[in-house]
Amino acid sequence: MLDLATRAHNHSYRIDPVLRSLLDTDFYKFLMLQFIWLHYREVPVTFSLINRTANVRLADMIPEADLRAQLDHARTLRFTKSELIWLAGNTFYGQSGMFRPDFLAWLASYQLPSYQLAVKDGQYELTFSGPWAEVTLWEIPAVAIVNTLRNRQGLYRLSRFELDVLYSQAKTNLWRNLLQLREAGLSGLADFGTRRRHDYLYHEWAVLATRDVLGTAFSGTSNVLLAMRHDIEAIGTNGHELPMVVATLARTPEDLRASQYEVLARWQETYGGHLLISLPDTYGTTQFLTGAPDWVADWTGLRIDSKEPVAGGEEAITWWSMRGRDPRSKLILFSDGLDTTTMIALHHHFRGRVRTGFGWGTLLTNDFRGCHPRGADDLDPISLICKVTEANGRPAVKLSDNDAKPTGPPDEIERYRAVFGRSGVTHRPVLV
Amino acid sequence: MLDLATRAHNHSYRIDPVLRSLLDTDFYKFLMLQFIWLHYREVPVTFSLINRTANVRLADMIPEADLRAQLDHARTLRFTKSELIWLAGNTFYGQSGMFRPDFLAWLASYQLPSYQLAVKDGQYELTFSGPWAEVTLWEIPAVAIVNTLRNRQGLYRLSRFELDVLYSQAKTNLWRNLLQLREAGLSGLADFGTRRRHDYLYHEWAVLATRDVLGTAFSGTSNVLLAMRHDIEAIGTNGHELPMVVATLARTPEDLRASQYEVLARWQETYGGHLLISLPDTYGTTQFLTGAPDWVADWTGLRIDSKEPVAGGEEAITWWSMRGRDPRSKLILFSDGLDTTTMIALHHHFRGRVRTGFGWGTLLTNDFRGCHPRGADDLDPISLICKVTEANGRPAVKLSDNDAKPTGPPDEIERYRAVFGRSGVTHRPVLV
Repeated sequence: MLDLATRAHNHSYRIDPVLRSLLDTDFYKFLMLQFIWLHYREVPVTFSLINRTANVRLADMIPEADLRAQLDHARTLRFTKSELIWLAGNTFYGQSGMFRPDFLAWLASYQLPSYQLAVKDGQYELTFSGPWAEVTLWEIPAVAIVNTLRNRQGLYRLSRFELDVLYSQAKTNLWRNLLQLREAGLSGLADFGTRRRHDYLYHEWAVLATRDVLGTAFSGTSNVLLAMRHDIEAIGTNGHELPMVVATLARTPEDLRASQYEVLARWQETYGGHLLISLPDTYGTTQFLTGAPDWVADWTGLRIDSKEPVAGGEEAITWWSMRGRDPRSKLILFSDGLDTTTMIALHHHFRGRVRTGFGWGTLLTNDFRGCHPRGADDLDPISLICKVTEANGRPAVKLSDNDAKPTGPPDEIERYRAVFGRSGVTHRPVLV
Repeated sequence: MLDLATRAHNHSYRIDPVLRSLLDTDFYKFLMLQFIWLHYREVPVTFSLINRTANVRLADMIPEADLRAQLDHARTLRFTKSELIWLAGNTFYGQSGMFRPDFLAWLASYQLPSYQLAVKDGQYELTFSGPWAEVTLWEIPAVAIVNTLRNRQGLYRLSRFELDVLYSQAKTNLWRNLLQLREAGLSGLADFGTRRRHDYLYHEWAVLATRDVLGTAFSGTSNVLLAMRHDIEAIGTNGHELPMVVATLARTPEDLRASQYEVLARWQETYGGHLLISLPDTYGTTQFLTGAPDWVADWTGLRIDSKEPVAGGEEAITWWSMRGRDPRSKLILFSDGLDTTTMIALHHHFRGRVRTGFGWGTLLTNDFRGCHPRGADDLDPISLICKVTEANGRPAVKLSDNDAKPTGPPDEIERYRAVFGRSGVTHRPVLV
């Protein structure tokens, strides 16, 4: 017996929106947005979608009309009253009033700005240009929408029975990984998997399963909507776009080197003693630490996002010790392509020497490797990012600690390398 | 093909909770609770469930174990962080900061207190005793739980096909009624149907359908959870329990007569110029208006809850005019067993002479009359209430404008009648 209304609805819906709330994004985007809104609101920027898994030809797989329908739908969303009330009233990192009333008033009329979409060589060229404060919130929805639409194409090819098997396997794997993490006594694990997730519903399942298994060892989620819906701590601080855009304002090599610390000084001024986790790898961690003013060593910790994590952690510990700080009071947050084995190894390696945290992304919310019932790779995660590529009319550049991960035009990458050097930079393959 | 996990879950759940959030109650309970918490926190009271539809033998229909399991589950609930943030941050009647931080801090550790349950003559004797500020929130969940459990017994006897027909008919009827209301140009309609609803999901459907059809003519919902979840205005002010409990503190006939105005004076002092809708029928509307101090006529309006509504409205208009106030600036809120025909008649009768509002309850959220596929009356609404029956060690009494609706022991009703008189009191059958 069928529920006729449900069946008719399921078979005739115009669109199944990937994005249903503007809170369905990473928390650090809001912290950065308020910072940008205060200090750099009108700086013109361009964000671009970049598919680092070039052999997956996204434009051949996802119909352009589907992509446009989803992007257009996202632009119809507004922050709801309840969402703004929650942003105003919730505490973040134990701190109330994190967002200023004038900023929240601005958010109340916010909508995602327009986009430019073209196709080239089987890939989508999707870009967002405009004032930084308007454009920046596109990053996560853009990546999540394209990832989800690609996954849906893979799902369309499966029968109901195969779908059942697929999800059963993915859930079984995740559950087993979570039990291993609990067994190892790992703590400080947070969900960082919004942008690369399989889709929203699987993301939600993964986060609730993690909370269920890890209990207090689960420190929270970067996803603001899930944080609100399930009373979970919202986690995040800042990302590469801040030093990348501020760097484009520099006119001399000295200014360029100094810009990576200027942005931290201003961050500290904006958020006081909270949220002091630096992200030192934008132009190379080694040069960043060597040249850092002494107050940077007073920050709570740092995030290791592109360096081999044991080496990165050791380097940070040595640096804090040399600067006369006790590493045991510091926090290292690992966030680069983590899997269970790596996290457990890092946990054992650094135990008792430094506090560790783990921002688990793709392989928490989209680990379908080996789950496809016919062995296809349709649903394996790909390395899709949306980054600032231009600011103030100049190309934006990220070098990172991994030669496989820089973004920017080759001549600009060379110019930045000449200023920042190659100290500590290696080459590691990018999985996700 | 079946989703095995869903099927196994559906067929083996231990409990399907009727109450899933402490916000799933009427908004006026929170306004009253804060008032009680400020002024009468420790006053000992007893609330009792009363089934005025005596021929429906609830204890013969609902297994006691089921009822206890639901009541026990309700006692495990706490206000979530997101719910408290919303109460703190939302505006009510355009007013921010309606709830004091110290009151919200108290709510954070609140749980529904214990209950006493016995069976007598085929009816449940369900009572709640303790400090007023703790007991009062049981009113709505107690009624909603018993009503929902009774309805489930009715639903258990239907096949899947019959269930489909049942809901199709109920929705069709509601939709037609809503179109009639829109056609008549009626406005100011609010949902007051939480306690008597069919169940939560049908309630939600009814509220969203009403918003869909009536648009801005729908003024809001008394249900706090629905208000939060769907960004709807929360509606409500105060109820009979305030004058009923305060009356038990009176020692002389003069004090007793005065107590009905004392409670209003204190309300006005607590909430300032907002929420000034009086409920004059507790001890009879006519005596209330005749004896009212002049400042009562300055209030925004009044609610007519037991008098024949045209007569009640006319009486109010005459009273405002006699007191030198312009009735066209006043609001009359009708809330007693309304149906579509009555609301449209009242709308036409009073148009241009006074502002009207309609608190639509049972017949919005539980009108299954004539929908049962085998013509049974299992799912017709019954007149179930949960009222304060004792306070300060003395019986609590409500007289109302309808001789069919008083509550209290006969000798006490007589004592109150002697003080307040019978002016304007009639006898009308109680439908819902």
